[in-house]
Amino acid sequence: EQVKVLLSLKDKLRIASGEPASGSKSAKSFSLKTPKGTKDYTAKEMSVRSKIFSTITSVFEKHGAVTIDTPVFELKEILTGKYGEDSKLIYDLKDQGGEECSLRYDLTVPFARHVAMNGISNVKRFQIAKVYRRDQPAMTKGRMREFYQCDYDIAGQYDAMIPDAECVRVAVEVLTSLDVGSFVIKINHRKILDAIFEVSGVPEDKIRTISSAVDKLDKLPWADVKKEMTEEKGLDESVADKIGEYVRLSGREELLDKLRALPELMASSKAQEGVADMDLFFKYAKIYNILDYVSFDMSLARGLDYYTGIIYEAVLTEENVRPTEAQPTATGAKEVKEGGEIDESQVRVGSIAAGGRYDELVGMFSAARRGGKAKGKNSNVPCVGISFGVERIYSIVMSRLPAETIKANKTQVALKIATELWDAGIPAEFTYKVKPRLQSQYNTCDQEVIPWAVLIGSDEVASGNVKIKNMAVKVEGEEGGVTVKRSDMISELKQRLGL
Amino acid sequence: EQVKVLLSLKDKLRIASGEPASGSKSAKSFSLKTPKGTKDYTAKEMSVRSKIFSTITSVFEKHGAVTIDTPVFELKEILTGKYGEDSKLIYDLKDQGGEECSLRYDLTVPFARHVAMNGISNVKRFQIAKVYRRDQPAMTKGRMREFYQCDYDIAGQYDAMIPDAECVRVAVEVLTSLDVGSFVIKINHRKILDAIFEVSGVPEDKIRTISSAVDKLDKLPWADVKKEMTEEKGLDESVADKIGEYVRLSGREELLDKLRALPELMASSKAQEGVADMDLFFKYAKIYNILDYVSFDMSLARGLDYYTGIIYEAVLTEENVRPTEAQPTATGAKEVKEGGEIDESQVRVGSIAAGGRYDELVGMFSAARRGGKAKGKNSNVPCVGISFGVERIYSIVMSRLPAETIKANKTQVALKIATELWDAGIPAEFTYKVKPRLQSQYNTCDQEVIPWAVLIGSDEVASGNVKIKNMAVKVEGEEGGVTVKRSDMISELKQRLGL
Repeated sequence: EQVKVLLSLKDKLRIASGEPASGSKSAKSFSLKTPKGTKDYTAKEMSVRSKIFSTITSVFEKHGAVTIDTPVFELKEILTGKYGEDSKLIYDLKDQGGEECSLRYDLTVPFARHVAMNGISNVKRFQIAKVYRRDQPAMTKGRMREFYQCDYDIAGQYDAMIPDAECVRVAVEVLTSLDVGSFVIKINHRKILDAIFEVSGVPEDKIRTISSAVDKLDKLPWADVKKEMTEEKGLDESVADKIGEYVRLSGREELLDKLRALPELMASSKAQEGVADMDLFFKYAKIYNILDYVSFDMSLARGLDYYTGIIYEAVLTEENVRPTEAQPTATGAKEVKEGGEIDESQVRVGSIAAGGRYDELVGMFSAARRGGKAKGKNSNVPCVGISFGVERIYSIVMSRLPAETIKANKTQVALKIATELWDAGIPAEFTYKVKPRLQSQYNTCDQEVIPWAVLIGSDEVASGNVKIKNMAVKVEGEEGGVTVKRSDMISELKQRLGL
Repeated sequence: EQVKVLLSLKDKLRIASGEPASGSKSAKSFSLKTPKGTKDYTAKEMSVRSKIFSTITSVFEKHGAVTIDTPVFELKEILTGKYGEDSKLIYDLKDQGGEECSLRYDLTVPFARHVAMNGISNVKRFQIAKVYRRDQPAMTKGRMREFYQCDYDIAGQYDAMIPDAECVRVAVEVLTSLDVGSFVIKINHRKILDAIFEVSGVPEDKIRTISSAVDKLDKLPWADVKKEMTEEKGLDESVADKIGEYVRLSGREELLDKLRALPELMASSKAQEGVADMDLFFKYAKIYNILDYVSFDMSLARGLDYYTGIIYEAVLTEENVRPTEAQPTATGAKEVKEGGEIDESQVRVGSIAAGGRYDELVGMFSAARRGGKAKGKNSNVPCVGISFGVERIYSIVMSRLPAETIKANKTQVALKIATELWDAGIPAEFTYKVKPRLQSQYNTCDQEVIPWAVLIGSDEVASGNVKIKNMAVKVEGEEGGVTVKRSDMISELKQRLGL
């Protein structure tokens, strides 16, 4: 009996240390995979992804942004205390004798660290890179543990709401350029939201958790959200009802007048500041021609702690969200994680970009640099930014794009010809066989969408000619290819390829 | 006394666990950094790096290669047993309840895993991505713990040496396109090298370590290498002398005739196979016009275990290697790590690309997939590839390129004008100030090399005009800018910008 227990414990130890249990035979046969929540991207997927990146990059660059690159891991303490409850999703590196490090969870915190570390007072930067979250993967919904974010941020002391409006303009330009279909950018302001909670009577320590409940209003009916606030989170029913009145408000610019007409709310200095900001925002959004895309929505709350001003989230509108290969369960509704926390800036169904103003983050790092003191005038750098979740955009673009590959097509002579083609800048490939079969090469042209073939037989070698054959289109009378002088091969091909 | 010891031990424990020692005050003031061996890349550095990547990519694509992307971490067991002694440099992720994972050490092993996992029989792929090694960093020499590799590999059953010669041709094209200066590509063959060790009498279990000693011959004189072989590694002096005769041979194609004239060596079937391969290689290299770049060097050994055929390494030639900002100690000689191991495919001083044939790696993974059995005909996929270490190339290119930025240049009207410029595809920026000072904007144009400014004062607003001013060049009579109609602004700017 005791031996059994011991053996079982031994097995548990083996499992804990990563060795296969004694009972399991073919542990090796399960090892040929990528880690949970990660995947390889094939050439076709990469070509779509790089098109998306290049479209996004060109918008960012048009706005004068420059790119920086930061390490894939950061000192653990840099990430500590930045993500609230989601900190449990951070990947740590093993302690192998040295510093404690963690994989980056987003691109915002490393950016703030970079700005503080280098004493930068203002910069407009973009970064397109992978981030890591030990979340429960939902690959079919595009939720991965390793995924790309495309971030655009403006750091610096500027006049109120000008860079904020530009971030929303950038979102409109990116999503329009990518042709993702119709979308709306929901906006709200943390100070107005805080004022609502304040005047409704939410205790200080419950603001964050009540805020998450509010953020579910686009998925759940008010009754359910209220239930969560009162039954789960212990809020007084009267307080919840008051919140409910406020956060169900949405509209456009005219909503500001509605808010101004609420004396109880406007008694809060936070509300006054938020409303003044939003007033400016709408002024600038009008000039930027983006008013039609914007919806002022008091239920937008966002989960991350570090936002201090305007917040926004771009969502595909209902009509546009249809099940695609990679998104069979898309419903247009927000996705809520276990425990009721909403996963910020993660790829949600329907949500494709999000961000906001975070004025304190750089200051946290600057203060650390100065050993906790000297919170001087210039130690803080206000920031605002937007992050695009590319997996969702990817699946939309992927479902529409036709396959597209452009390539051009042995004996020993083939090596020489390939050399000439490469030297002339013409993409070329050949079968690595001394005696390749013609038909198999034709098949390769078909499969790889190679538009032109150069044919060489003993006749051609003897006469100093080559045949060039259109593999994409059958040309009447030229089914066997056209014979051209070897010395004219490059110019003939260039002409036909339009090079 | 004992209390003192205990307190000191406590401190040691704290340090070991990453906490600050009780005595140290401002632990936080040291945290604002990137992890050891990593760095942020600034906008300027990124622009140089992306030019290098785009040059390399265009060569790879010209040869018909497609790109794939793999996760930054792999299951630990995928990497186990692939890198010999260097396995100690692998970064592991912390066990947070799940799979054991490690950061990728190179791009070759993940590629082989990808090929085996997907049952791919042939593919020509490239990948440009970061790899991770817990090596002693030497940032000034460009040796980092996080660094980029640019890999080009051909997988598939093909006729001997055709893809191998193409990899060397690709190296020549890449290094020529990048204009790195004069270089030579050293080549050798693992089978010839193994035959040399065999006929010299090196015991089987010492072949790897003796091979590393040989690889130092371009840095150390033969006497030192021999000393390492005999005194450190216990080889008979007569055996070392025999090796010495062989490995000091170098030359070009004619070296093959010299080898063929050595009956003892040629009695080895491995030597016969290696020489036949190299004979073919030179034949193809001649057709590919790369003979001038190639040096047949019997002292090239390479450290990685998985090579099975031709091996090569591109090195800058002595005259070309000069100290640069990032490389103050460049000497053109190979760098040897502590313990005498040579760091393979790592950025060495002078070495900028390396690779070779590895025919067994995919088979190791395929065998694992089939539970260790079924080593059938198609379970193995022979591969050959080359890896470019971009940090070294980066520092060469960086030392030559001039700063280069192209950007173009408020009241509330500025937002409207910026919108028009963005809509027209003209890059534009403005100061985010309601009342910006003109001189500070002029300074920004200078700093950011912005070629044109659009000027608006109350006069211009009233008259419906704008002034456009060349910021790059002083134009006689146009020092204050040229007044144009607001409606002509875009066309006037486009014309001047050549758009």
